[in-house]
Parts: sequence; structure tokens; C-alpha cells
Amino acid sequence: MTIHLECADELLTTTRAVRKRLDLTRPVPREVILDCIRISQQAPTGSNSQGWRWVVVADPAKKQALADLYRSVSADYFTQASERARTAGEAQTSRVFDSAMYLAEHMQDMPLLVIPCLMGRPAEGGGVAASAGFFASIYPAVWNFNLALRARGLGAALTTLHLVREKDAAAILGIPDDVTQVALLPVGYTIGDTFSPARRPPPETITAFDQWQLS
Amino acid sequence: MTIHLECADELLTTTRAVRKRLDLTRPVPREVILDCIRISQQAPTGSNSQGWRWVVVADPAKKQALADLYRSVSADYFTQASERARTAGEAQTSRVFDSAMYLAEHMQDMPLLVIPCLMGRPAEGGGVAASAGFFASIYPAVWNFNLALRARGLGAALTTLHLVREKDAAAILGIPDDVTQVALLPVGYTIGDTFSPARRPPPETITAFDQWQLS
Repeated sequence: MTIHLECADELLTTTRAVRKRLDLTRPVPREVILDCIRISQQAPTGSNSQGWRWVVVADPAKKQALADLYRSVSADYFTQASERARTAGEAQTSRVFDSAMYLAEHMQDMPLLVIPCLMGRPAEGGGVAASAGFFASIYPAVWNFNLALRARGLGAALTTLHLVREKDAAAILGIPDDVTQVALLPVGYTIGDTFSPARRPPPETITAFDQWQLS
Repeated sequence: MTIHLECADELLTTTRAVRKRLDLTRPVPREVILDCIRISQQAPTGSNSQGWRWVVVADPAKKQALADLYRSVSADYFTQASERARTAGEAQTSRVFDSAMYLAEHMQDMPLLVIPCLMGRPAEGGGVAASAGFFASIYPAVWNFNLALRARGLGAALTTLHLVREKDAAAILGIPDDVTQVALLPVGYTIGDTFSPARRPPPETITAFDQWQLS
């Protein structure tokens, strides 16, 4: 089949970070998550390395432990950042932080906590070339996963805060030392299906042609 | 409008890395690229930071300089890696490397070279938490851009090799020190539109439920 431009653009422009509108009462079947992971696997990886691994957490005790861990990192961060955004009058960012604080409070209640991982570790002291090469082999897959969720009536929020305590999270889930966690995504069915593109600056203001001339 | 599952899955599973099948004779209009960048801006960023910047290179002399730079890094890497894949009998990876070598040879002939950037630098010595948080704010946008290209009959290949010489590339394009390049994408219209999902291992083999039990 061919890809319809309207459908594609709708998918790519309305896959929001969903935090307050995840249905906490509706379980997510395993086969739905596996289907989205199957689709994530079609994203590119450097040197065709295909080092993705996924940990899908539904167990209430483990979700509680991860939620406690997440809150231990996020609490101060959110309060300060939200206050800063509010003071600066950035309404959109302020809303994002309020929503993120809601997520932190309810993390243990999310139907699933999904942790995408990549085999190996980014080279220490390898600079941007090494770390960019590493993460470029997993975040496209993570975003493909997120888009696949959206197409199925589910939503997620891509968070990385818990990585400050990556080792503690690894201990909770039995993740080996040579595997790198790259995110924590609460996942669930969304309440309603009316997501819109967010307000963004015009692309011309962030694009340079042939020579940098941006602020 | 609603998102049709079939259309979404087709988009997400057939957006290949296109190297040999980019039309070198057909120019890419600026408004098409800006449209894809507009769509990329709907991907999430940490703390709603929206630090994306894009450099779009069509100038023949600058493309030549970037291509020379790219080859200076890629030559040894490809020859060794391709030989290794061939020896190991990994046919898919061997094909990928052959295709990547074709790309390196023809880099200056690609209609556009697109360099996505992120304002700021990943924190030195900040470990995975800092670098993951940084790159998670740009690769979803880069992949959204790639998917938007696909929906318009264009293709690209997400490469990071040139970052070994990031400073030299920055000098060619006038990119400031506090802006981080994260990739180099050759972009063009694709020759034909018949892209298929790639062979991948079953998702069950890379997914753990509640507790790591993977190889």
C-alpha cells in the first residue's frame, strides 16, 4: 500500500507526551506491547547493530519501587523548574511541568512502565562522536515505539530522569552491568483520542541554509 | 481525522536507510525540507527545551568539503567492518556496509546534506543520565524528520561518523562552539517507492517482562 500524507502527518504531529490522560484502569495486553516493539525494530541502528532490549514492568511491587526511585530524583527538579517557568511566564513549559509532576505522583499507577535499553555502554571519554553514535541507535526505535502506541490508541511519555539512579533501577529489574537503560516510559491507553499539534516556532527560525546564521 | 493503523504501520516499518536509491539528479525544494522540519518539531524534548537547530547544505563546495571530511573518517572503518561482516557470514550487515560505502563515495553528489543540531553540549563526565537526557531531546525529532521525508517520497540515511571531526564540520558551516551536531543525513527523492520491512528477530527475543531474563 502507499502511505497517505495526511495520515502520516497526523501521526507525526499529534503524538504528544501523555501523562494525565493515560487510563489507569485499563490493562495493556502483552501482545499490543510486543507489536509496538516489533515496529520499533524497523528503526535504524549504527552498523546494523540491532542492540535494542526492552523491559516491560507490570508487577505492582516493581512499579512501586521504580516510582519511588523516580520521585527521589524528580521532586526537587520539578519544583524548581516549574517555578522558574512560571516566573518567566512560559505558559506551555509551566503546563508541561505540572503534568510531569502529576506523572511522578502517579508513576506506580501507570498500567506499564517500559524501559528501553541498549546492549553495551557508551564509551567513557569518547566525546560527542561516541555518545551520539550510541544513542542514535536506540532513540529512533524508542520514538517509533511511541508512534506505534499512538496508532493503537495508547500513549506514553519519554522520560530520562530515573537514569540518575540507573544502577538502582537495574538492581530492581536484574538488568546486567553491560546493558544501558535509556528511558522510562509510562504506557497506557489514552483517555480520548483528540490530540493536536503543539505550538512551535516557525521552522524557518531554526533552520540555516549552507551557513549558520541563527541565534 | 483519525490515524489509520495500516498507514501508520506502513510508514513506521518501511522507512529504510536509503543510500543507493536517492535520485542524484532531482533537486529538493526548500519548502519540502522546511515542511519536514516543521513536523520534526512535534517530537518531545526534555523539559520542553525545544533546542533543535538544522543546517541544510545544498552548496556544491560545502557538500564536497563535508564529503571529504566524512570519507576521511569512514574509509578504514567501512573496509574493516564490511570484511568482518562478510567473513562472519552476516549477509544483511554486509549489504548495509556495501551500501554505506557507496554513500561515502557519492556523499558530495547527494541533493542535500542535512545536519540536525542541538543547542548546548552534553555535560562532560555527567555519565549516561546527562548524555541520554541530552540526545533524547533531538533523535526523536531527527527520526520524525526522516519519517516525514518518507511520506513525501524522499529518503535519507542517519549517519553519525562525521562527528569524529565535528569541529572541522562546524568550521565549514560556521556552527558555534555551544551547538552540538548530532548527525549528517544525505537527503533526496527516492528512486521508486517500494520499500519493505527489514528482517528482524521476533520481539519476544528482545523483551523481558518484570525481570531481565534475556541474553
